[in-house]
Amino acid sequence: MATELIGASASRAGVFGARPLRVAVIGCGYWGPNLVRNFFDAPGSTVTRVCDLEPERLDAIGKRYPTIGLGSDWRDVVHDPDVDAVCIATPAATHYAIAREALNAGKHVWVEKPLSMSFAEARELTELATKLGRVLLVDHTFVYTPAVQRMRQSIVSGELGDLLYYDSIRVNLGMYQHDVNVIWDLGVHDFSIIDYLLPYRPSGVSAVAASQIADSGREGLAYVTLHFEGDFIAHFHVSWLAPVKIRLATVCGTKRMIVFDDTAPSEKLKIYDRGIEVSGSSKDRERLQVEYRTGDMSAPKLDQVEALQIAAQHFAECVATGATPITDGAAGARVVAMLEATQRSLAAGGRVEKLDF
Amino acid sequence: MATELIGASASRAGVFGARPLRVAVIGCGYWGPNLVRNFFDAPGSTVTRVCDLEPERLDAIGKRYPTIGLGSDWRDVVHDPDVDAVCIATPAATHYAIAREALNAGKHVWVEKPLSMSFAEARELTELATKLGRVLLVDHTFVYTPAVQRMRQSIVSGELGDLLYYDSIRVNLGMYQHDVNVIWDLGVHDFSIIDYLLPYRPSGVSAVAASQIADSGREGLAYVTLHFEGDFIAHFHVSWLAPVKIRLATVCGTKRMIVFDDTAPSEKLKIYDRGIEVSGSSKDRERLQVEYRTGDMSAPKLDQVEALQIAAQHFAECVATGATPITDGAAGARVVAMLEATQRSLAAGGRVEKLDF
Amino acid sequence: MATELIGASASRAGVFGARPLRVAVIGCGYWGPNLVRNFFDAPGSTVTRVCDLEPERLDAIGKRYPTIGLGSDWRDVVHDPDVDAVCIATPAATHYAIAREALNAGKHVWVEKPLSMSFAEARELTELATKLGRVLLVDHTFVYTPAVQRMRQSIVSGELGDLLYYDSIRVNLGMYQHDVNVIWDLGVHDFSIIDYLLPYRPSGVSAVAASQIADSGREGLAYVTLHFEGDFIAHFHVSWLAPVKIRLATVCGTKRMIVFDDTAPSEKLKIYDRGIEVSGSSKDRERLQVEYRTGDMSAPKLDQVEALQIAAQHFAECVATGATPITDGAAGARVVAMLEATQRSLAAGGRVEKLDF
Amino acid sequence: MATELIGASASRAGVFGARPLRVAVIGCGYWGPNLVRNFFDAPGSTVTRVCDLEPERLDAIGKRYPTIGLGSDWRDVVHDPDVDAVCIATPAATHYAIAREALNAGKHVWVEKPLSMSFAEARELTELATKLGRVLLVDHTFVYTPAVQRMRQSIVSGELGDLLYYDSIRVNLGMYQHDVNVIWDLGVHDFSIIDYLLPYRPSGVSAVAASQIADSGREGLAYVTLHFEGDFIAHFHVSWLAPVKIRLATVCGTKRMIVFDDTAPSEKLKIYDRGIEVSGSSKDRERLQVEYRTGDMSAPKLDQVEALQIAAQHFAECVATGATPITDGAAGARVVAMLEATQRSLAAGGRVEKLDF
Repeated sequence: MATELIGASASRAGVFGARPLRVAVIGCGYWGPNLVRNFFDAPGSTVTRVCDLEPERLDAIGKRYPTIGLGSDWRDVVHDPDVDAVCIATPAATHYAIAREALNAGKHVWVEKPLSMSFAEARELTELATKLGRVLLVDHTFVYTPAVQRMRQSIVSGELGDLLYYDSIRVNLGMYQHDVNVIWDLGVHDFSIIDYLLPYRPSGVSAVAASQIADSGREGLAYVTLHFEGDFIAHFHVSWLAPVKIRLATVCGTKRMIVFDDTAPSEKLKIYDRGIEVSGSSKDRERLQVEYRTGDMSAPKLDQVEALQIAAQHFAECVATGATPITDGAAGARVVAMLEATQRSLAAGGRVEKLDF
Repeated sequence: MATELIGASASRAGVFGARPLRVAVIGCGYWGPNLVRNFFDAPGSTVTRVCDLEPERLDAIGKRYPTIGLGSDWRDVVHDPDVDAVCIATPAATHYAIAREALNAGKHVWVEKPLSMSFAEARELTELATKLGRVLLVDHTFVYTPAVQRMRQSIVSGELGDLLYYDSIRVNLGMYQHDVNVIWDLGVHDFSIIDYLLPYRPSGVSAVAASQIADSGREGLAYVTLHFEGDFIAHFHVSWLAPVKIRLATVCGTKRMIVFDDTAPSEKLKIYDRGIEVSGSSKDRERLQVEYRTGDMSAPKLDQVEALQIAAQHFAECVATGATPITDGAAGARVVAMLEATQRSLAAGGRVEKLDF
Repeated sequence: MATELIGASASRAGVFGARPLRVAVIGCGYWGPNLVRNFFDAPGSTVTRVCDLEPERLDAIGKRYPTIGLGSDWRDVVHDPDVDAVCIATPAATHYAIAREALNAGKHVWVEKPLSMSFAEARELTELATKLGRVLLVDHTFVYTPAVQRMRQSIVSGELGDLLYYDSIRVNLGMYQHDVNVIWDLGVHDFSIIDYLLPYRPSGVSAVAASQIADSGREGLAYVTLHFEGDFIAHFHVSWLAPVKIRLATVCGTKRMIVFDDTAPSEKLKIYDRGIEVSGSSKDRERLQVEYRTGDMSAPKLDQVEALQIAAQHFAECVATGATPITDGAAGARVVAMLEATQRSLAAGGRVEKLDF
Repeated sequence: MATELIGASASRAGVFGARPLRVAVIGCGYWGPNLVRNFFDAPGSTVTRVCDLEPERLDAIGKRYPTIGLGSDWRDVVHDPDVDAVCIATPAATHYAIAREALNAGKHVWVEKPLSMSFAEARELTELATKLGRVLLVDHTFVYTPAVQRMRQSIVSGELGDLLYYDSIRVNLGMYQHDVNVIWDLGVHDFSIIDYLLPYRPSGVSAVAASQIADSGREGLAYVTLHFEGDFIAHFHVSWLAPVKIRLATVCGTKRMIVFDDTAPSEKLKIYDRGIEVSGSSKDRERLQVEYRTGDMSAPKLDQVEALQIAAQHFAECVATGATPITDGAAGARVVAMLEATQRSLAAGGRVEKLDF
């Protein structure tokens, strides 16, 4: 498993001494402006260039940040010697080409999820970054939330006991994407959270999905199961077609159970002191008693900092110190491998597809 | 589809003129006492005999209902000429034998879910009831709730538009059963609700489950998908192993979406005036626009009557009028067929098993 | 303050050796049947007689409990030598006369809230019970809930720090009473909870109310404030005229804050590890810093036993052991004193009326 | 009552032809930056100057908006001929002096709530604005929320029937203010909402408050009642000292009841089709029957636009068209009158203080 998150609460002093990291953001649609804001405001970095194909988007950036250089050609940006790092927030199909050229140009690279459209591309980018000694961070944003950090701590510490299952619901009335289905759009979050949280790797994946909009060819609703050695399973439901927004993840262990409700206005994370107690001989199933122990519930206080701010600072620190990001190219590649296998399962009528990374 | 629910709000006057239906309840574990209470209190029926193998259970009934005859032999009850109908609330594996003998003895029969352990048995009981002209009602309790009745009305009236999917979560920290897994225990509710609600029948079923308790051999957590011709799918998650109780069903159509939250203290049913609008030619997927229309939400007032009370009265009315219950033997048999096919899917690693009833 | 609750979780064995306490229930309207059920089912007591003026109510009791003697004359019951104790669940205006005659006839007495219509009557009954050595318990039901018991424990242990305020909301679309206003109907619960919870006594009370129904003369909405020496205040809002049911009490201290949401399906009681920290000299108000400390929230597991069952058993135990009930006549009298003073405040335009008991 | 809100959804085109309204913001503490952002982004206005006494605040503005002129002397700003309007977001005690000088200098004026520290000052500013023909808008932000607009529409249309009461809770763990108590800080919102919503004016006000922090002299918790002719009352609870944030307002009528829960993630406004039906003669109180009619609940869709954006545009439009703002100086003066009377009530032990404006 990758490096622990370092310095999330550390001093926000600049990491280059007097000079902050000079970041260029490529792609300013839905998510790009958030990158601009976070890297612009962070003490260890600044944004010097933004590029997009749509003039109105650049205008909006220019009005708010007059010091940022604007343009439409990402190659200019990638080869600008006054740029230290590039953030790639373009459509997924373009990630690989831009990231490769940026790495080859000596830049540190931040890529939005998913890292690429294929595992082969993802692995190539990862190896390239390693070879050239550049930082490659995939923006698996949820990994950087205080809630997921706290969940991982509960798992690593043994507080939950033996893990039994992971279940997640991530649905709302969401925008139909033109280029990807709901698994590549929303399921990627669950894959990345599971990849980060769990101490073991899935051995297979299966999925059921529906493409309710005739002829759209893009599934808007999906149920995905990750299979593991032993009894543990992880399941998630993702949908663009639910009347009410739900963001609810459960991690259940034999000693404690965690519920993370990301739509709750407060107490998003609840740890239930509930567990399972089995008595009787396993040889005599009829007499095997399964009982529950139920105790208090506790909702730990969580920092209210924006995950993207933590991630942006983590990126700048990795550049400064040479550390490996916790969502590095390898994590990004595993997530792409899961996405690819899920597509194969859908094509094969829901069959379990093996995962081997 | 079976008869509509008749007389739910009709007069509760006795249906046999002066004499109420004389009911015997066989099995007084968890659910039996509720049957005793409802048939005892209803104006159209009374309870004259109760039988169980455990003396303490009979004592409890006897203390509260001194007029009821108590005993341990169900055959006595089934052949008692002063009994008009028997309610069978024994372990599932015994339903078939008791129901067959009761029908053959000329009794009307109420059976707890599931009707039997196999589709063959269920069909046999159904045919027997038809041949003998006796009422056979399977207690698919949720079908009788005002909320499910209202949902069916929305579907039948076309208010929802074209149906897109059904999704349900039915989880809590539930009692591990000795004889059945969580699908036979809780999933049976979803099968029966889906069977009642939808205007078409599923063509296949697939399932994923986990048996977290080593060697118990009984799955405590399952995800089940019913496949239909066309784009519609129904999915439900059932679990005995969730820290928080959730009872949440969603039926989504192109014009409206219904959410039924059975744990909500009020406004359990919410109808969202939200729909999908597709524009552009389906030949040009890239330009196909999927947009949402969002309007008001409305929570219809629901009667607060206990479902079992409605069902008990419905049973007495069917006996009196010769009507077919809305949850008749045929409905019970379809649900058993779905349960059997789900078991086959689990045994086959989650493969879709055909349903043909 | 009265005796602590004894034996709430103790063995439920009969307290009279072989013979259980023989209870008669006078008044079988809304609450009486709950008394019958609890005293009938409890191992230490039974119900032998029930009396009411309305024949249908007696019929309903008779159908369910054929062994109970029925009648319409409370004097018969009160002088029956085979009755050990009477429960008085008649309209409030009759409590005093019935309770006095029952005590004088040597019975132990359980009275529904409020104990009487005046403090003078309440005190007389209390003194009479003491003189005759009989148990007098006023049914301040909420005091016996596990949640209120746990709140008191938090206060007594010092866990909350210095107490700052008590605030309660107890509203819903409630039945307009014919004989009393909403303060005598619902506010009495808050008075009794405050009387039990707090380590000190109020010095005054003031109230604002509205009688929205022209000419009904009965206030359906009220805001009541109890004033204490020092900075502490207790405030509650009671209403029969709210669209949504709310039962929400907050007790706030300098170290921790408790919220009791009685409509929540689970985690009704939440203890927030939040407190106040004041720094700077109090002489220089401008520089006085008030800051908050916020930590985890914890929801203790509570027993799910019905409060009335605990109270019924407590009554039987007090009879058996001679202990003073935690809601004795003195507590009942203090609550009546608060109700009387509140009426005076309303009559005087909301003026603070002194309390001196 | 003042002008209806005009053009909230109208075109956002500039109101001065080619030239947008040039706004200066005085005071950049908690709220000022929101004013800067909204007036800067709105199509009909821009921000040209910002002034504050603290250099760090100016730095933060300068970094984000390099085109804005910065300074520390509000008199410079007020007399700048290139400024059309000033927004005053300084401590309340300074509002009067700055607003008066700005009006006299010919500027249009936007003042944060409360308009001033006394009714006399507020009336003087109002008269001055009228005399000089300048727009004076008091930022009663909540009035501009879609929820409050919708509530007013329900009241004005008669949909609610006769009004019975208004109740509000506005509490959280809030920052202790140095210069004002919780009524001047939070209660001002309720005064302004009530002033806008209701078709009649209060005749008196009374209040209870507690100053839990010894010697701070600033009440952190208060209960305020507005009294009206007839049966209607309005009550609100404001607090800086509550463990959980609550923003809950209820307006109850004889035909319908509205609940506005501003912390709900969706369906913030719920309209309950519930009403009161009185039968029987009012001369015979004993037989007066008060019953409820309960029907569906409906949650109207609300625009999700930021209230401050609507208000900012409304201000620009009033300047352009000469219309009177819906929260004009007169509304601001009435709110200050209520605040002053509340202080008198607190000083007089909670006595009802007359309101006469």
